[in-house]
Amino acid sequence: MKWYESCGKDRDVIVSSRVRLARNIVDYPFGDRLDDASKKEIIAKVKDALADGKEYVFRDFASLSETERIAAEEEHAVSPEFARGSGPRALIESADGTAFIMILEEDHIRIQTITPGFSLDEAFDKAREIDGKLDSKLNIAYDEKLGYLTHCPTNLGTGMRASVMMFLPGIAHSGDLRSLQNQLGKIGLTIRGMAGEGSSADGCLFQISNQVTLGVSEEETVAKLVQITERLIEQERTLRRKMYEADREALTDRIMRSYGVMLYATLVDTQELFRLYSDVRLGVSLGVIDCVTAERLDRILVKCMPAVLIRDNDGVRDARSRDRARAETIRRLLSGAPEGKK
Amino acid sequence: MKWYESCGKDRDVIVSSRVRLARNIVDYPFGDRLDDASKKEIIAKVKDALADGKEYVFRDFASLSETERIAAEEEHAVSPEFARGSGPRALIESADGTAFIMILEEDHIRIQTITPGFSLDEAFDKAREIDGKLDSKLNIAYDEKLGYLTHCPTNLGTGMRASVMMFLPGIAHSGDLRSLQNQLGKIGLTIRGMAGEGSSADGCLFQISNQVTLGVSEEETVAKLVQITERLIEQERTLRRKMYEADREALTDRIMRSYGVMLYATLVDTQELFRLYSDVRLGVSLGVIDCVTAERLDRILVKCMPAVLIRDNDGVRDARSRDRARAETIRRLLSGAPEGKK
Repeated sequence: MKWYESCGKDRDVIVSSRVRLARNIVDYPFGDRLDDASKKEIIAKVKDALADGKEYVFRDFASLSETERIAAEEEHAVSPEFARGSGPRALIESADGTAFIMILEEDHIRIQTITPGFSLDEAFDKAREIDGKLDSKLNIAYDEKLGYLTHCPTNLGTGMRASVMMFLPGIAHSGDLRSLQNQLGKIGLTIRGMAGEGSSADGCLFQISNQVTLGVSEEETVAKLVQITERLIEQERTLRRKMYEADREALTDRIMRSYGVMLYATLVDTQELFRLYSDVRLGVSLGVIDCVTAERLDRILVKCMPAVLIRDNDGVRDARSRDRARAETIRRLLSGAPEGKK
Repeated sequence: MKWYESCGKDRDVIVSSRVRLARNIVDYPFGDRLDDASKKEIIAKVKDALADGKEYVFRDFASLSETERIAAEEEHAVSPEFARGSGPRALIESADGTAFIMILEEDHIRIQTITPGFSLDEAFDKAREIDGKLDSKLNIAYDEKLGYLTHCPTNLGTGMRASVMMFLPGIAHSGDLRSLQNQLGKIGLTIRGMAGEGSSADGCLFQISNQVTLGVSEEETVAKLVQITERLIEQERTLRRKMYEADREALTDRIMRSYGVMLYATLVDTQELFRLYSDVRLGVSLGVIDCVTAERLDRILVKCMPAVLIRDNDGVRDARSRDRARAETIRRLLSGAPEGKK
């Protein structure tokens, strides 16, 4: 199941957990110096390597429409660079919707797993399983001293980026974000806002990930992120409760109004959706609202991204038709009714 | 039935119709030169004059609490001057809730009738009936040349003010209010905003009334107001439809959001209520919303006025508790559930 289709541990604070491994094949230059023939060879080799065993879905990513590519980015299946790049490239998706192997992103291979809630170990295990499978079939570039060789030196070593997508309205409200950013930087972690790309924290969604890949093991990286995340979860819950206690009625009113608008508005733009999502998701965690779940709201957020809306709904094009389809999708998913085309 | 408890003709545009007759008793000076003993005599005489026939409820208005007095003003049962004045005065209310006789407002007697929707003739008939009853028992000050003698010269003649409370979102939106004001002035009518006292037209409620009382008959006054009101009703409907057609989706969105906020907000202040009321009442008239009626919304507006809320709900005092009770009252009345104390 996709990360936005199932619940998960500490879902009140953690939206999803992700692990990404960068890998390259010996005997081929890095991506920007590859000719199209070599690219096609690499795609074929990775496809073959995963052909046996459990099911994978292969997609010639370059042949997809722009809408489909951006929609995949909005679902967090692929990176923005991969979605918006050019030239031959492919995407292999595990049938259970938790793993995405980008072929010819920045590196020859990028294994990415994404699991619901706080589940870094599970995401890591899944990534490692695919890595092992590829390693047994392909000659992966690895140096005894440096570790995995990658296109960008910042990925050298483990080639791993582990991350958690956190919902942090309490911390954001407390104004402690800047200091959190500094603290995390000192221990080799980074935090960035996810409401819109790298924009302000209207949606209170933040991705926290490791920056260091050299001189550490994968296990150490995951363990450290798990440890820090556990502390942040507690901090967020405390601040959320404190914010609530400071003025229960005013916060309840804000939450209920946002819920009312979600149920009744007929035109909703992306920026407002982030705000409504944030209010209502907070309301669910505080027990103010009990007729919707956090994962349902996460699903709404994904299903209401611009390209996803265009992909999943007939006749959606311009801003107005997107806002209309977004409002309809919110209402449909809040009521628990079955979804349209997809 | 009170004007906000029943439907009425052209209720999409006309909230209520009102007629007020100013009368004074011969042998007593006007109000500001009356001593308390004379005031009590006048109160007793008027009370006696209405004692027979159909039922009236007598209230020693001066002994009411400030909350009860202001609440009566908010329900349009009495004038602001009467509610906020001092000294002996009384209110006689017809048992059917359509007539209110203020004793010792500016004049000795002010007969006021208020009926739902566009029903000026009905309001006039009711006022005339009470007037006849009083005239048969009391020596009413009347001059062959001047007509009824009143405290203020602007009421000399008929002593009558006929008015309609109109809901005019279309005209307000069109920006033609100023020109309407000028036009009405030229034919002896006046218009004033009613959202809050004389404030801006956030709520789109306007009272249109005659200014001239001298040299015209009561019938002429009512006939002219009826004629102009009929034209305004048509104009308002046309402009409302035009506003809707200009951007159906955007207006529908605004209406549905306001309805959602009414159903879900837990704190609502008076100013916002006027805005929500206006949006939803417009939505009802356009057929965008069909699960609530105009008179139900009018009832909500009255029942959510500050003093009415304090009078009708236990424990309501400060602004926060009023905003809370207002939100609860809106939800309760929208759902059609029975009301609290009253």
